[in-house]
Amino acid sequence: MNDKLIARLTVEAFLADYMLAIDSDRLEEWHDFFTQDGTYRVTTRENEELGLPLNIMSCRGHGMFKDRITALRTANIFEPHVYCHIPGALRITGMKGDVIESESTFTIIRTTNHGDMRVFVCGRTRDRIVLGEGGPKLIDRTVILDSRQIETLLVIPI
Amino acid sequence: MNDKLIARLTVEAFLADYMLAIDSDRLEEWHDFFTQDGTYRVTTRENEELGLPLNIMSCRGHGMFKDRITALRTANIFEPHVYCHIPGALRITGMKGDVIESESTFTIIRTTNHGDMRVFVCGRTRDRIVLGEGGPKLIDRTVILDSRQIETLLVIPI
Amino acid sequence: MNDKLIARLTVEAFLADYMLAIDSDRLEEWHDFFTQDGTYRVTTRENEELGLPLNIMSCRGHGMFKDRITALRTANIFEPHVYCHIPGALRITGMKGDVIESESTFTIIRTTNHGDMRVFVCGRTRDRIVLGEGGPKLIDRTVILDSRQIETLLVIPI
Repeated sequence: MNDKLIARLTVEAFLADYMLAIDSDRLEEWHDFFTQDGTYRVTTRENEELGLPLNIMSCRGHGMFKDRITALRTANIFEPHVYCHIPGALRITGMKGDVIESESTFTIIRTTNHGDMRVFVCGRTRDRIVLGEGGPKLIDRTVILDSRQIETLLVIPI
Repeated sequence: MNDKLIARLTVEAFLADYMLAIDSDRLEEWHDFFTQDGTYRVTTRENEELGLPLNIMSCRGHGMFKDRITALRTANIFEPHVYCHIPGALRITGMKGDVIESESTFTIIRTTNHGDMRVFVCGRTRDRIVLGEGGPKLIDRTVILDSRQIETLLVIPI
Repeated sequence: MNDKLIARLTVEAFLADYMLAIDSDRLEEWHDFFTQDGTYRVTTRENEELGLPLNIMSCRGHGMFKDRITALRTANIFEPHVYCHIPGALRITGMKGDVIESESTFTIIRTTNHGDMRVFVCGRTRDRIVLGEGGPKLIDRTVILDSRQIETLLVIPI
Protein backbone atom coordinates (compact mmCIF):
# COMPACT_ATOMS: atom_id res chain seq x y z
CA MET A 1 0.00 0.00 0.00
CA ASN A 2 1.36 3.39 -0.95
CA ASP A 3 1.30 6.56 1.18
CA LYS A 4 -1.65 8.00 -0.69
CA LEU A 5 -3.83 4.98 0.01
CA ILE A 6 -2.87 5.08 3.70
CA ALA A 7 -3.64 8.82 3.81
CA ARG A 8 -7.04 8.08 2.24
CA LEU A 9 -7.84 5.48 4.91
CA THR A 10 -6.76 7.84 7.68
CA VAL A 11 -8.94 10.67 6.37
CA GLU A 12 -11.86 8.32 5.80
CA ALA A 13 -11.77 7.05 9.39
CA PHE A 14 -11.37 10.60 10.74
CA LEU A 15 -14.32 11.97 8.74
CA ALA A 16 -16.43 8.99 9.81
CA ASP A 17 -15.70 9.90 13.45
CA TYR A 18 -16.66 13.51 12.68
CA MET A 19 -19.98 12.50 11.11
CA LEU A 20 -20.87 10.04 13.85
CA ALA A 21 -20.18 12.67 16.54
CA ILE A 22 -22.70 14.98 14.87
CA ASP A 23 -25.27 12.29 14.13
CA SER A 24 -25.00 11.12 17.75
CA ASP A 25 -25.71 14.65 19.04
CA ARG A 26 -22.24 14.88 20.58
CA LEU A 27 -22.07 18.45 19.28
CA GLU A 28 -19.97 19.65 22.20
CA GLU A 29 -17.11 17.66 20.61
CA TRP A 30 -17.45 19.45 17.27
CA HIS A 31 -14.77 22.12 17.82
CA ASP A 32 -12.28 19.46 18.84
CA PHE A 33 -12.19 18.05 15.30
CA PHE A 34 -10.58 21.36 14.27
CA THR A 35 -7.25 22.96 15.10
CA GLN A 36 -7.35 25.81 17.62
CA ASP A 37 -7.82 28.41 14.85
CA GLY A 38 -9.46 26.07 12.33
CA THR A 39 -12.07 27.39 9.91
CA TYR A 40 -15.37 26.01 8.71
CA ARG A 41 -17.74 27.35 6.10
CA VAL A 42 -20.80 26.21 4.18
CA THR A 43 -21.58 27.60 0.77
CA THR A 44 -23.42 26.52 -2.39
CA ARG A 45 -22.10 25.22 -5.68
CA GLU A 46 -23.60 28.25 -7.42
CA ASN A 47 -21.84 30.75 -5.13
CA GLU A 48 -18.59 28.84 -5.47
CA GLU A 49 -18.75 28.77 -9.29
CA LEU A 50 -19.62 32.46 -9.47
CA GLY A 51 -16.84 33.26 -7.01
CA LEU A 52 -19.30 34.85 -4.60
CA PRO A 53 -17.93 35.22 -1.08
CA LEU A 54 -21.32 34.56 0.53
CA ASN A 55 -21.38 31.80 3.08
CA ILE A 56 -24.41 30.14 4.62
CA MET A 57 -22.43 29.43 7.77
CA SER A 58 -18.90 30.35 8.78
CA CYS A 59 -16.75 29.78 11.88
CA ARG A 60 -13.13 30.49 12.78
CA GLY A 61 -11.45 29.31 15.97
CA HIS A 62 -12.71 27.12 18.82
CA GLY A 63 -14.55 30.01 20.47
CA MET A 64 -16.90 30.51 17.53
CA PHE A 65 -17.52 26.79 17.18
CA LYS A 66 -18.50 26.54 20.85
CA ASP A 67 -20.68 29.66 20.67
CA ARG A 68 -22.56 28.20 17.77
CA ILE A 69 -23.34 25.00 19.64
CA THR A 70 -24.34 26.93 22.77
CA ALA A 71 -26.75 28.95 20.63
CA LEU A 72 -28.13 25.77 19.14
CA ARG A 73 -28.63 24.23 22.57
CA THR A 74 -30.19 27.28 24.22
CA ALA A 75 -31.46 29.95 21.89
CA ASN A 76 -32.54 28.50 18.57
CA ILE A 77 -36.05 27.25 18.15
CA PHE A 78 -36.40 24.59 15.52
CA GLU A 79 -38.29 21.40 14.91
CA PRO A 80 -36.44 18.48 16.48
CA HIS A 81 -34.71 16.38 13.87
CA VAL A 82 -31.77 14.04 13.47
CA TYR A 83 -29.19 13.81 10.74
CA CYS A 84 -27.83 10.68 9.15
CA HIS A 85 -24.61 11.54 7.28
CA ILE A 86 -23.79 9.23 4.41
CA PRO A 87 -20.20 9.73 3.26
CA GLY A 88 -19.74 9.45 -0.50
CA ALA A 89 -16.67 9.24 -2.70
CA LEU A 90 -13.39 10.43 -1.18
CA ARG A 91 -10.08 11.24 -2.83
CA ILE A 92 -6.80 12.71 -1.69
CA THR A 93 -6.00 15.85 -3.66
CA GLY A 94 -2.72 16.81 -1.98
CA MET A 95 -0.11 15.76 0.59
CA LYS A 96 2.57 18.08 1.97
CA GLY A 97 4.39 17.05 5.13
CA ASP A 98 1.77 16.45 7.82
CA VAL A 99 -1.03 18.08 5.86
CA ILE A 100 -3.49 16.12 3.74
CA GLU A 101 -5.95 17.73 1.35
CA SER A 102 -9.03 15.80 0.32
CA GLU A 103 -12.36 16.21 -1.39
CA SER A 104 -15.43 14.09 -0.82
CA THR A 105 -19.13 13.92 -1.54
CA PHE A 106 -21.83 13.35 1.05
CA THR A 107 -25.57 13.16 1.58
CA ILE A 108 -27.56 13.81 4.71
CA ILE A 109 -30.90 12.15 5.37
CA ARG A 110 -32.90 14.13 7.88
CA THR A 111 -35.64 12.55 9.98
CA THR A 112 -38.07 14.73 11.89
CA ASN A 113 -39.98 13.80 15.02
CA HIS A 114 -43.01 13.07 12.87
CA GLY A 115 -40.99 10.40 11.10
CA ASP A 116 -40.62 12.32 7.86
CA MET A 117 -37.40 11.16 6.23
CA ARG A 118 -35.76 12.82 3.24
CA VAL A 119 -32.57 13.81 1.49
CA PHE A 120 -31.87 17.08 3.28
CA VAL A 121 -28.70 18.16 1.52
CA CYS A 122 -26.01 16.68 -0.64
CA GLY A 123 -22.79 18.08 -1.99
CA ARG A 124 -19.10 17.95 -1.44
CA THR A 125 -16.48 18.95 1.07
CA ARG A 126 -12.92 20.17 0.68
CA ASP A 127 -10.87 19.44 3.76
CA ARG A 128 -7.35 20.23 4.90
CA ILE A 129 -6.28 17.98 7.72
CA VAL A 130 -3.12 18.05 9.79
CA LEU A 131 -1.80 14.87 11.39
CA GLY A 132 -0.45 15.24 14.90
CA GLU A 133 0.02 13.50 18.21
CA GLY A 134 -3.53 14.19 19.30
CA GLY A 135 -4.86 12.63 16.10
CA PRO A 136 -5.91 14.34 12.86
CA LYS A 137 -7.44 17.83 13.06
CA LEU A 138 -9.19 19.95 10.42
CA ILE A 139 -7.31 23.12 9.46
CA ASP A 140 -10.25 24.06 7.30
CA ARG A 141 -13.41 22.46 6.01
CA THR A 142 -15.49 23.86 3.17
CA VAL A 143 -18.91 22.35 2.54
CA ILE A 144 -20.33 23.07 -0.93
CA LEU A 145 -24.01 22.22 -1.24
CA ASP A 146 -25.35 21.06 -4.62
CA SER A 147 -28.62 22.88 -4.15
CA ARG A 148 -28.97 26.63 -3.90
CA GLN A 149 -31.92 26.19 -1.62
CA ILE A 150 -31.86 25.05 1.96
CA GLU A 151 -35.36 24.09 2.90
CA THR A 152 -35.00 24.98 6.55
CA LEU A 153 -32.63 26.80 8.83
CA LEU A 154 -29.28 25.05 8.77
CA VAL A 155 -28.86 24.52 12.49
CA ILE A 156 -26.80 21.42 13.03
CA PRO A 157 -23.32 21.49 11.47
CA ILE A 158 -22.51 19.38 8.41
CA MET B 1 -1.38 1.36 9.87
CA ASN B 2 -2.42 0.67 13.43
CA ASP B 3 -4.59 -2.19 14.68
CA LYS B 4 -7.68 -0.02 14.93
CA LEU B 5 -7.48 1.00 11.28
CA ILE B 6 -7.03 -2.61 10.21
CA ALA B 7 -9.99 -3.65 12.38
CA ARG B 8 -12.04 -0.89 10.73
CA LEU B 9 -11.19 -2.18 7.24
CA THR B 10 -12.00 -5.76 8.23
CA VAL B 11 -15.39 -4.77 9.64
CA GLU B 12 -16.13 -2.56 6.64
CA ALA B 13 -15.46 -5.38 4.17
CA PHE B 14 -17.48 -7.84 6.27
CA LEU B 15 -20.50 -5.53 6.55
CA ALA B 16 -20.32 -4.85 2.78
CA ASP B 17 -20.53 -8.62 2.19
CA TYR B 18 -23.51 -8.76 4.57
CA MET B 19 -25.34 -5.96 2.76
CA LEU B 20 -24.64 -7.33 -0.71
CA ALA B 21 -25.92 -10.78 0.31
CA ILE B 22 -29.24 -9.20 1.34
CA ASP B 23 -29.48 -6.85 -1.64
CA SER B 24 -28.74 -9.79 -3.96
CA ASP B 25 -31.58 -11.84 -2.42
CA ARG B 26 -29.14 -14.41 -1.07
CA LEU B 27 -31.20 -14.44 2.15
CA GLU B 28 -30.51 -18.11 2.82
CA GLU B 29 -26.94 -17.01 3.69
CA TRP B 30 -28.14 -14.48 6.28
CA HIS B 31 -27.81 -16.70 9.37
CA ASP B 32 -24.26 -17.58 8.40
CA PHE B 33 -23.08 -14.00 9.04
CA PHE B 34 -23.87 -14.66 12.72
CA THR B 35 -22.36 -16.98 15.29
CA GLN B 36 -24.39 -20.10 16.13
CA ASP B 37 -26.23 -18.31 18.95
CA GLY B 38 -25.89 -14.78 17.54
CA THR B 39 -28.58 -12.21 18.14
CA TYR B 40 -30.19 -9.62 15.93
CA ARG B 41 -32.71 -6.95 16.75
CA VAL B 42 -34.25 -3.90 15.14
CA THR B 43 -35.54 -1.04 17.23
CA THR B 44 -36.09 2.72 16.91
CA ARG B 45 -34.06 5.64 18.20
CA GLU B 46 -37.03 6.72 20.31
CA ASN B 47 -37.39 3.32 21.98
CA GLU B 48 -33.66 3.14 22.57
CA GLU B 49 -33.51 6.61 24.16
CA LEU B 50 -36.51 5.89 26.39
CA GLY B 51 -35.01 2.54 27.33
CA LEU B 52 -38.07 0.70 26.04
CA PRO B 53 -37.45 -3.00 25.44
CA LEU B 54 -39.75 -3.10 22.40
CA ASN B 55 -38.17 -4.49 19.25
CA ILE B 56 -39.56 -4.34 15.75
CA MET B 57 -37.76 -7.55 14.90
CA SER B 58 -35.67 -9.90 17.01
CA CYS B 59 -33.82 -13.19 16.39
CA ARG B 60 -31.51 -15.40 18.47
CA GLY B 61 -29.68 -18.42 17.09
CA HIS B 62 -29.44 -19.84 13.59
CA GLY B 63 -32.78 -21.65 13.87
CA MET B 64 -34.73 -18.42 14.27
CA PHE B 65 -32.84 -16.71 11.46
CA LYS B 66 -33.66 -19.58 9.11
CA ASP B 67 -37.30 -19.68 10.20
CA ARG B 68 -37.65 -16.02 9.46
CA ILE B 69 -36.34 -16.43 5.92
CA THR B 70 -38.53 -19.50 5.31
CA ALA B 71 -41.54 -17.45 6.40
CA LEU B 72 -40.51 -14.65 4.08
CA ARG B 73 -40.12 -17.08 1.17
CA THR B 74 -43.34 -19.00 1.71
CA ALA B 75 -45.88 -17.35 3.97
CA ASN B 76 -45.60 -13.58 3.85
CA ILE B 77 -47.50 -11.67 1.25
CA PHE B 78 -45.93 -8.36 0.35
CA GLU B 79 -45.34 -6.18 -2.65
CA PRO B 80 -42.15 -7.25 -4.44
CA HIS B 81 -39.33 -4.82 -3.78
CA VAL B 82 -35.56 -4.69 -3.64
CA TYR B 83 -33.26 -3.04 -1.17
CA CYS B 84 -30.15 -1.07 -1.91
CA HIS B 85 -28.10 -0.74 1.30
CA ILE B 86 -25.83 2.29 1.41
CA PRO B 87 -23.31 1.98 4.23
CA GLY B 88 -22.55 5.26 5.99
CA ALA B 89 -19.93 6.28 8.52
CA LEU B 90 -18.23 3.48 10.48
CA ARG B 91 -16.11 3.62 13.61
CA ILE B 92 -14.56 1.06 15.88
CA THR B 93 -15.82 1.55 19.45
CA GLY B 94 -13.99 -1.32 21.15
CA MET B 95 -11.47 -4.13 20.67
CA LYS B 96 -10.96 -6.97 23.15
CA GLY B 97 -9.07 -10.06 21.98
CA ASP B 98 -10.87 -11.41 18.91
CA VAL B 99 -13.95 -9.26 19.42
CA ILE B 100 -14.47 -5.93 17.66
CA GLU B 101 -17.25 -3.52 18.52
CA SER B 102 -18.35 -0.99 15.95
CA GLU B 103 -21.08 1.49 15.20
CA SER B 104 -22.14 2.66 11.77
CA THR B 105 -24.85 4.56 9.96
CA PHE B 106 -26.73 3.34 6.91
CA THR B 107 -29.53 4.15 4.50
CA ILE B 108 -31.67 1.78 2.46
CA ILE B 109 -33.23 2.83 -0.83
CA ARG B 110 -36.18 0.63 -1.67
CA THR B 111 -37.41 0.16 -5.22
CA THR B 112 -40.79 -1.43 -5.86
CA ASN B 113 -41.86 -3.30 -8.99
CA HIS B 114 -43.59 -0.15 -10.18
CA GLY B 115 -40.23 1.61 -10.15
CA ASP B 116 -40.99 3.77 -7.12
CA MET B 117 -37.68 4.52 -5.46
CA ARG B 118 -37.28 6.10 -2.04
CA VAL B 119 -35.34 6.29 1.19
CA PHE B 120 -36.98 3.44 3.06
CA VAL B 121 -35.11 3.61 6.36
CA CYS B 122 -31.97 5.14 7.74
CA GLY B 123 -30.29 4.85 11.09
CA ARG B 124 -27.38 3.20 12.78
CA THR B 125 -26.13 -0.22 13.78
CA ARG B 126 -24.13 -1.41 16.77
CA ASP B 127 -22.28 -4.59 15.97
CA ARG B 128 -20.13 -7.00 17.94
CA ILE B 129 -18.04 -9.16 15.65
CA VAL B 130 -15.77 -12.06 16.49
CA LEU B 131 -12.84 -12.90 14.22
CA GLY B 132 -12.21 -16.59 13.64
CA GLU B 133 -10.94 -19.14 11.16
CA GLY B 134 -14.19 -19.18 9.23
CA GLY B 135 -14.04 -15.38 8.85
CA PRO B 136 -15.76 -12.70 10.94
CA LYS B 137 -19.16 -13.47 12.50
CA LEU B 138 -21.68 -11.24 14.24
CA ILE B 139 -22.18 -12.00 17.93
CA ASP B 140 -24.93 -9.42 17.98
CA ARG B 141 -26.28 -6.74 15.69
CA THR B 142 -28.60 -3.97 16.83
CA VAL B 143 -30.24 -1.83 14.20
CA ILE B 144 -31.60 1.50 15.49
CA LEU B 145 -33.88 3.27 13.04
CA ASP B 146 -33.99 7.08 13.01
CA SER B 147 -37.70 7.15 12.30
CA ARG B 148 -40.36 5.85 14.64
CA GLN B 149 -42.49 4.91 11.69
CA ILE B 150 -41.94 2.06 9.32
CA GLU B 151 -44.07 2.68 6.30
CA THR B 152 -44.56 -0.98 5.48
CA LEU B 153 -44.02 -4.36 7.03
CA LEU B 154 -40.32 -4.84 7.63
CA VAL B 155 -39.89 -8.12 5.81
CA ILE B 156 -36.36 -8.27 4.49
CA PRO B 157 -33.61 -8.04 7.13
CA ILE B 158 -31.49 -4.91 7.49
CA MET C 1 -3.86 -7.39 5.58
CA ASN C 2 -4.44 -10.00 2.93
CA ASP C 3 -4.38 -9.48 -0.86
CA LYS C 4 -8.16 -9.39 -1.12
CA LEU C 5 -8.45 -6.55 1.37
CA ILE C 6 -5.74 -4.57 -0.44
CA ALA C 7 -7.50 -5.21 -3.77
CA ARG C 8 -10.72 -3.94 -2.19
CA LEU C 9 -9.05 -0.71 -1.05
CA THR C 10 -7.47 -0.19 -4.47
CA VAL C 11 -10.79 -0.64 -6.26
CA GLU C 12 -12.59 1.56 -3.75
CA ALA C 13 -10.15 4.44 -4.26
CA PHE C 14 -10.27 4.02 -8.04
CA LEU C 15 -14.08 4.03 -8.18
CA ALA C 16 -14.15 7.08 -5.91
CA ASP C 17 -11.89 8.90 -8.40
CA TYR C 18 -14.24 7.81 -11.21
CA MET C 19 -17.34 9.12 -9.41
CA LEU C 20 -15.71 12.41 -8.41
CA ALA C 21 -14.58 13.03 -12.00
CA ILE C 22 -18.20 12.70 -13.17
CA ASP C 23 -19.71 14.66 -10.28
CA SER C 24 -17.14 17.42 -10.91
CA ASP C 25 -18.14 17.64 -14.57
CA ARG C 26 -14.70 16.47 -15.70
CA LEU C 27 -16.45 14.31 -18.28
CA GLU C 28 -13.62 14.65 -20.80
CA GLU C 29 -11.63 12.35 -18.49
CA TRP C 30 -14.30 9.65 -18.54
CA HIS C 31 -12.81 7.50 -21.31
CA ASP C 32 -9.46 7.48 -19.56
CA PHE C 33 -10.84 5.38 -16.70
CA PHE C 34 -11.26 2.57 -19.27
CA THR C 35 -8.75 0.54 -21.25
CA GLN C 36 -8.39 1.47 -24.95
CA ASP C 37 -11.11 -1.02 -25.96
CA GLY C 38 -13.00 -1.01 -22.66
CA THR C 39 -16.76 -1.49 -22.57
CA TYR C 40 -19.51 0.19 -20.61
CA ARG C 41 -23.19 -0.57 -20.48
CA VAL C 42 -26.22 0.38 -18.42
CA THR C 43 -29.15 -1.98 -18.07
CA THR C 44 -31.94 -2.70 -15.57
CA ARG C 45 -32.29 -5.44 -12.99
CA GLU C 46 -35.38 -6.69 -14.82
CA ASN C 47 -33.60 -6.97 -18.18
CA GLU C 48 -30.65 -8.65 -16.52
CA GLU C 49 -32.82 -11.23 -14.72
CA LEU C 50 -34.81 -12.00 -17.87
CA GLY C 51 -31.59 -12.26 -19.87
CA LEU C 52 -32.71 -9.50 -22.23
CA PRO C 53 -29.86 -7.99 -24.24
CA LEU C 54 -31.39 -4.51 -24.18
CA ASN C 55 -29.11 -1.80 -22.88
CA ILE C 56 -30.07 1.74 -21.90
CA MET C 57 -26.61 2.93 -22.82
CA SER C 58 -23.62 1.11 -24.29
CA CYS C 59 -20.07 2.11 -25.32
CA ARG C 60 -17.01 0.21 -26.57
CA GLY C 61 -13.60 1.79 -27.09
CA HIS C 62 -12.31 5.29 -26.34
CA GLY C 63 -13.77 6.71 -29.56
CA MET C 64 -17.35 5.96 -28.53
CA PHE C 65 -16.79 7.30 -25.03
CA LYS C 66 -15.49 10.58 -26.41
CA ASP C 67 -18.30 10.83 -28.98
CA ARG C 68 -20.83 10.43 -26.24
CA ILE C 69 -19.36 13.29 -24.21
CA THR C 70 -19.08 15.52 -27.29
CA ALA C 71 -22.77 14.89 -27.98
CA LEU C 72 -23.60 15.72 -24.38
CA ARG C 73 -21.62 18.95 -24.56
CA THR C 74 -22.92 20.12 -27.91
CA ALA C 75 -26.06 18.41 -29.17
CA ASN C 76 -28.22 17.21 -26.31
CA ILE C 77 -30.76 19.54 -24.80
CA PHE C 78 -31.58 18.77 -21.21
CA GLU C 79 -32.33 20.56 -17.99
CA PRO C 80 -29.08 21.42 -16.21
CA HIS C 81 -28.47 19.15 -13.26
CA VAL C 82 -25.65 17.74 -11.16
CA TYR C 83 -25.07 14.27 -9.87
CA CYS C 84 -23.86 13.28 -6.44
CA HIS C 85 -22.68 9.66 -6.55
CA ILE C 86 -22.84 7.85 -3.24
CA PRO C 87 -20.87 4.59 -3.37
CA GLY C 88 -22.47 1.75 -1.43
CA ALA C 89 -21.23 -1.69 -0.44
CA LEU C 90 -18.27 -3.08 -2.37
CA ARG C 91 -16.89 -6.60 -2.55
CA ILE C 92 -14.19 -8.32 -4.54
CA THR C 93 -15.68 -11.23 -6.49
CA GLY C 94 -12.56 -12.42 -8.31
CA MET C 95 -8.81 -11.93 -8.70
CA LYS C 96 -6.74 -13.39 -11.53
CA GLY C 97 -3.27 -11.98 -12.17
CA ASP C 98 -3.63 -8.23 -12.68
CA VAL C 99 -7.40 -8.36 -13.09
CA ILE C 100 -9.80 -7.69 -10.24
CA GLU C 101 -13.53 -8.32 -10.45
CA SER C 102 -15.83 -6.48 -8.09
CA GLU C 103 -19.47 -5.71 -7.47
CA SER C 104 -20.84 -2.71 -5.67
CA THR C 105 -24.02 -0.81 -4.98
CA PHE C 106 -24.51 2.91 -5.48
CA THR C 107 -27.06 5.72 -5.34
CA ILE C 108 -27.10 8.98 -7.24
CA ILE C 109 -28.77 12.09 -5.86
CA ARG C 110 -29.60 14.50 -8.65
CA THR C 111 -30.05 18.21 -8.04
CA THR C 112 -31.61 20.40 -10.71
CA ASN C 113 -31.07 24.12 -11.18
CA HIS C 114 -34.34 24.75 -9.37
CA GLY C 115 -32.87 23.06 -6.31
CA ASP C 116 -34.99 19.93 -6.58
CA MET C 117 -33.00 17.13 -5.00
CA ARG C 118 -33.90 13.46 -5.22
CA VAL C 119 -32.71 9.87 -5.51
CA PHE C 120 -32.27 9.65 -9.25
CA VAL C 121 -31.14 6.07 -9.60
CA CYS C 122 -29.75 3.31 -7.45
CA GLY C 123 -28.47 -0.13 -8.26
CA ARG C 124 -25.28 -2.04 -8.62
CA THR C 125 -22.21 -2.24 -10.79
CA ARG C 126 -20.08 -5.17 -11.91
CA ASP C 127 -16.59 -4.05 -12.78
CA ARG C 128 -13.51 -5.73 -14.20
CA ILE C 129 -10.40 -3.70 -13.53
CA VAL C 130 -6.85 -4.26 -14.72
CA LEU C 131 -3.92 -2.95 -12.69
CA GLY C 132 -1.07 -1.46 -14.68
CA GLU C 133 1.66 1.14 -14.66
CA GLY C 134 -0.73 3.94 -15.57
CA GLY C 135 -2.99 3.03 -12.66
CA PRO C 136 -6.12 0.86 -12.66
CA LYS C 137 -8.35 0.85 -15.76
CA LEU C 138 -11.82 -0.58 -16.35
CA ILE C 139 -11.93 -3.45 -18.84
CA ASP C 140 -15.69 -3.43 -18.54
CA ARG C 141 -18.28 -1.81 -16.34
CA THR C 142 -21.90 -2.95 -16.17
CA VAL C 143 -24.40 -0.75 -14.34
CA ILE C 144 -27.61 -2.53 -13.32
CA LEU C 145 -30.36 -0.16 -12.21
CA ASP C 146 -32.85 -1.33 -9.57
CA SER C 147 -35.72 0.49 -11.23
CA ARG C 148 -37.08 -0.31 -14.66
CA GLN C 149 -37.95 3.33 -15.13
CA ILE C 150 -35.59 6.18 -15.76
CA GLU C 151 -37.46 9.37 -15.12
CA THR C 152 -35.49 11.41 -17.59
CA LEU C 153 -33.03 10.93 -20.37
CA LEU C 154 -29.88 9.34 -18.98
CA VAL C 155 -27.36 11.86 -20.23
CA ILE C 156 -24.47 11.94 -17.82
CA PRO C 157 -22.67 8.61 -17.37
CA ILE C 158 -23.02 6.61 -14.15
